Amino acid sequence: MSTQDTQHDDLTPVPGRRKFLNTAALAGLAGAGLSVGLSSCKQEAPPAAAPAAGAAPAAASHGASPHLAPGQLDEYYGIWSGGHTGDMRILGLPSGREITRVPVFNPDPLVGWGITNESKAIMGTKADGSLRYTVADTHHTHASYKDGTYDGRYAWINDKINGRIARVKLDTFECDKITEIPNVQGFHGIFPDKADPVDPAITHTTRVFAGAEFSIPLPNDGSHLNDVDTYRSLFTCVDAETMAVRWQALIDGNCDLVATSYDGKLAATNQYNTEMGAKYEDMMSAEKDACTFFHIARIEQAVKDGKFKTYGDSKVPVVDATREANKDPKTALVAYVPVPKNPHGVNASPDAKYFICAGKLSPTATVIELGKVLDWFDGKLEDIKATVVAEVELGLGPLHTAFDGRGNAFTTLFLDSQVVKWNVEAAIKFHAGDKNAQYVVDRLDVQYQPGHLNASQSETREADGKWLCVGCKFSKDRFLPVGPLHPENEQLVDISGEKMKLIADHPVRPEPHDFIIVKRDRIKTRQVYNLDEFPNAVKDPKESGVFRNGNKVTVKLVSQAPAFSLREFTVKKGDEVTLILTNLDKVEDLTHGFAIPKYNINFIVNPLETKSVTFKADKPGVYWCYCTHFCHALHLEMRTRMIVEK
Amino acid sequence: MSTQDTQHDDLTPVPGRRKFLNTAALAGLAGAGLSVGLSSCKQEAPPAAAPAAGAAPAAASHGASPHLAPGQLDEYYGIWSGGHTGDMRILGLPSGREITRVPVFNPDPLVGWGITNESKAIMGTKADGSLRYTVADTHHTHASYKDGTYDGRYAWINDKINGRIARVKLDTFECDKITEIPNVQGFHGIFPDKADPVDPAITHTTRVFAGAEFSIPLPNDGSHLNDVDTYRSLFTCVDAETMAVRWQALIDGNCDLVATSYDGKLAATNQYNTEMGAKYEDMMSAEKDACTFFHIARIEQAVKDGKFKTYGDSKVPVVDATREANKDPKTALVAYVPVPKNPHGVNASPDAKYFICAGKLSPTATVIELGKVLDWFDGKLEDIKATVVAEVELGLGPLHTAFDGRGNAFTTLFLDSQVVKWNVEAAIKFHAGDKNAQYVVDRLDVQYQPGHLNASQSETREADGKWLCVGCKFSKDRFLPVGPLHPENEQLVDISGEKMKLIADHPVRPEPHDFIIVKRDRIKTRQVYNLDEFPNAVKDPKESGVFRNGNKVTVKLVSQAPAFSLREFTVKKGDEVTLILTNLDKVEDLTHGFAIPKYNINFIVNPLETKSVTFKADKPGVYWCYCTHFCHALHLEMRTRMIVEK
Repeated sequence: MSTQDTQHDDLTPVPGRRKFLNTAALAGLAGAGLSVGLSSCKQEAPPAAAPAAGAAPAAASHGASPHLAPGQLDEYYGIWSGGHTGDMRILGLPSGREITRVPVFNPDPLVGWGITNESKAIMGTKADGSLRYTVADTHHTHASYKDGTYDGRYAWINDKINGRIARVKLDTFECDKITEIPNVQGFHGIFPDKADPVDPAITHTTRVFAGAEFSIPLPNDGSHLNDVDTYRSLFTCVDAETMAVRWQALIDGNCDLVATSYDGKLAATNQYNTEMGAKYEDMMSAEKDACTFFHIARIEQAVKDGKFKTYGDSKVPVVDATREANKDPKTALVAYVPVPKNPHGVNASPDAKYFICAGKLSPTATVIELGKVLDWFDGKLEDIKATVVAEVELGLGPLHTAFDGRGNAFTTLFLDSQVVKWNVEAAIKFHAGDKNAQYVVDRLDVQYQPGHLNASQSETREADGKWLCVGCKFSKDRFLPVGPLHPENEQLVDISGEKMKLIADHPVRPEPHDFIIVKRDRIKTRQVYNLDEFPNAVKDPKESGVFRNGNKVTVKLVSQAPAFSLREFTVKKGDEVTLILTNLDKVEDLTHGFAIPKYNINFIVNPLETKSVTFKADKPGVYWCYCTHFCHALHLEMRTRMIVEK
Repeated sequence: MSTQDTQHDDLTPVPGRRKFLNTAALAGLAGAGLSVGLSSCKQEAPPAAAPAAGAAPAAASHGASPHLAPGQLDEYYGIWSGGHTGDMRILGLPSGREITRVPVFNPDPLVGWGITNESKAIMGTKADGSLRYTVADTHHTHASYKDGTYDGRYAWINDKINGRIARVKLDTFECDKITEIPNVQGFHGIFPDKADPVDPAITHTTRVFAGAEFSIPLPNDGSHLNDVDTYRSLFTCVDAETMAVRWQALIDGNCDLVATSYDGKLAATNQYNTEMGAKYEDMMSAEKDACTFFHIARIEQAVKDGKFKTYGDSKVPVVDATREANKDPKTALVAYVPVPKNPHGVNASPDAKYFICAGKLSPTATVIELGKVLDWFDGKLEDIKATVVAEVELGLGPLHTAFDGRGNAFTTLFLDSQVVKWNVEAAIKFHAGDKNAQYVVDRLDVQYQPGHLNASQSETREADGKWLCVGCKFSKDRFLPVGPLHPENEQLVDISGEKMKLIADHPVRPEPHDFIIVKRDRIKTRQVYNLDEFPNAVKDPKESGVFRNGNKVTVKLVSQAPAFSLREFTVKKGDEVTLILTNLDKVEDLTHGFAIPKYNINFIVNPLETKSVTFKADKPGVYWCYCTHFCHALHLEMRTRMIVEK
């Protein structure tokens, strides 16, 4: 491990703590009440929690501002994961304003997500028609590529709790597919590929990779339970278009984050639990874990050749990517590159040359040269360790890395509550022995305990080095107090100059994990639907009515402000009612809502959209169904009356 | 109706449209595709929807700014209703940043609201233990008073869909009570009282009033359905402390918004459907509707005297507040003050003298003097119409009114997409015949179609006239496009000077209705719980374990970063498991989460908080329960293993 401490005392304030963290040290810190998680490296107490309006540290005099005048539009879309809110959030940047939230895994009573038949079909239901899952924990979101940059088609997002991956269409910002991945648990990192590994004509995303964090029995049906040594993790490939699971790879250790190469040949995951331990002390017992590279073309050839197994009820082919089965580099499906202790984060540099793993329990970042990994797979490099071209010290608790497109990397230091800006080529020189290579460029204190960060277009060849967002997990005293649950703090940093400048604090509902920042011209939205997109559309008010087939009743109606086409409709107690509502208003932004009291039904219909709900009319009486989305001067008067006869 | 058009041509750009809207006109506009709802009074097309970064209209050079430097705290809490997201939102102002969302009526998978046993007990469950309601539509939120201003104890919020009122404790920003109001539908406006009507020692809130918007059969059990003329609305009084329904009042017509007098003697609701029509054309057939005043002391005496009925299963006493039963002012429980056509909004001025009703379908605001209403109840005023001291023209579609504490009112004009600032005393003079009284002070175009608005401390005697927020229902082109569903636009206006100045646009998820703006020193939060607040707290890691009683199993554990006290626990398929988790971490902001894969369980525990969940262990296998709330450098490693034996 290289170190630059002695040269950068100003940038690394407490050299004494900058040592490799070992098991005993961290366990001790944990026992002492989590001081490791909450104290800054400087060992200064953070400001008191009481409101202090006068406090206006740093950056006040800086030219860049996130404050847009009224009516001014943001320059970037921020696509944010929502954490355990289960949604995707769309921010405008640099203002930091949340423009919309896209319901994905969890029900949303505004949109009617999990209430309408159309959304339930995407979310998945049990035999009784109720939702299969009602909680989720989204961590990572990444968008589809073409020619090395975003093409504005899709973004994907994961659910760690239930092992699902979802796709959001970026033209309408709606989820259209959710896939549950078999035989995994704690599915964490995802990343789309950027090109095909074999066909040079395919320069856009056709696969998404997913890493399972927790090892489990295969299959996990209760037939073997306690023998942790037999638990395993799978690395998964999902088809970007069909969203079907293409294949899985059985590995040693676990998966965490995922990165993909620009040439489509490699995907990688960092592994913090090569020990396959069940307790945190076991998981951090080894001094080295791994960044594991998958050779996509070889894996897909193996699948074609029938060299796979399946587990349990799943029909997904699973190739063997364990160390034991992949000893010969020339045929190996996988390469395990050793990196220091419990790494977190693996990020591809925009020059397409490197993956960078942050050390988490090691104060280092490891730079792995992709050309050398391919050399190893080709049998041209004897020692896999030689793929590591730098392993340099950055500070305590390095987690994730972003890029400015000018050769600099920005890494969050969780324990130091800092972002460190460092130059990748200088780090490589330093690692190679040039102790005059000044790789640390700048450090910025952030508030507090940063996890993910990302820079504008950082994950593309168009990284433009303008803005950096830092997802701080603790906000403490940065916002008006609102009781025991604090928001997180997404801080905005201007990275256009040599020095980083903190520009703004943005509170966010816990807890976004990862996010990307996309130039606004990369996304082209559709603002009004087409009636023909909906096979069940009620295209004319004259088609409205109540249609009975035994005790199955279909109610068709349309909305045109300020009225629904049926002013009343009658059903009988016990009927299974399917209500289909088309919004015939065409004007952009003229959305209507539809709520039925006591029936747990609410949803919206956007201009020219159709949605349907199915429910049992089990409560006799009069129910005023009303428009829940302000639409017109007579919005309050916009109702229809459902009469349920005894 | 008075008019000031000829004097203020500059402020009322299209006098030709400023006429009383009649049924035919609005119906025609509705038929023509809602131009009434979407065109501005100026009949200029709004800017195109395409992004236009250069656009920076107005206010750019103004001194006041909502932009806080990093670390700077807001001056006001904004307490916002969330509309059909069913929650309450807490904003910081002037920054407009959303600091937290308080789950109330709808499940929240982050907090575990609707998942934990504690939250389910507040939300209400069916016999099978599932949630009674999963959708809601919050409209109005108002906070508790003492001595005419906010005392920081509670805020209340309504659910229009299912007729519920909830209370949020403002020390922890958590909902602690939800009450379903019997025999109402479309329950809309709420307002707490500000003093007791009889006991002068009680100068704080002890009641909350609630207005039911939709008339229904009483009881609504299917025994009579179609005869709309028999449907009725009730005005409801809820006890502020116990949250039990104290009494209801049967009225003619419907209820809408609610206001209360500073002396505690009067509550009022505006009525847009005195016609008791079932269709919007019927609802707008009369030229006058009403603002209806309730004499609280008399109503409560009538209840004491046993002068009430009950309906259906409800035991709540219902007094008769119909016109027929209240003809003699000296004994009347209610006074119906005629106001123009389908009024919307009733607001109390901070000088405690007036209630103001906005006309909605009339371009007017009506000023009602409370002293005169009391005079009428005392038999000192013959004609109830004499309580109206001004009825002046403001513009098209007036909805709601806020105040600056300097004698000025600010009213939203939905159709004109404007806020009009007007002087109340000047309006009274103008109405009294002084045609030189210039009551319109200023007009400001807003973007677009404003509903509610409110000013800092406007609903208290401490209205300070600094900031005004305007809830615009349409945002169209004001933010980066995100597909068919647009955010709403909460605009911030500086009202400290004579002219209003638009300062910022804030997108918000649809759809906030009402909100209040509270000086930050009025709210004192508690940032860490006390273990003793939770009777089931696991106070020591040694108390952890699995405790079996037949097939009922209790799992007790604690969280202390980076570990749960049990590293694994075993239950049997078919067990009913109650899991109790106490967070023994004491550090502010150190929240942990707890998710069980495939079991639809996720919740958080804040520092020193205890929560529990109960579920059936119906799926054998290994389930890694993990911390979902980033807590520590070893957060990812923080897990416990639930083993479900076959």
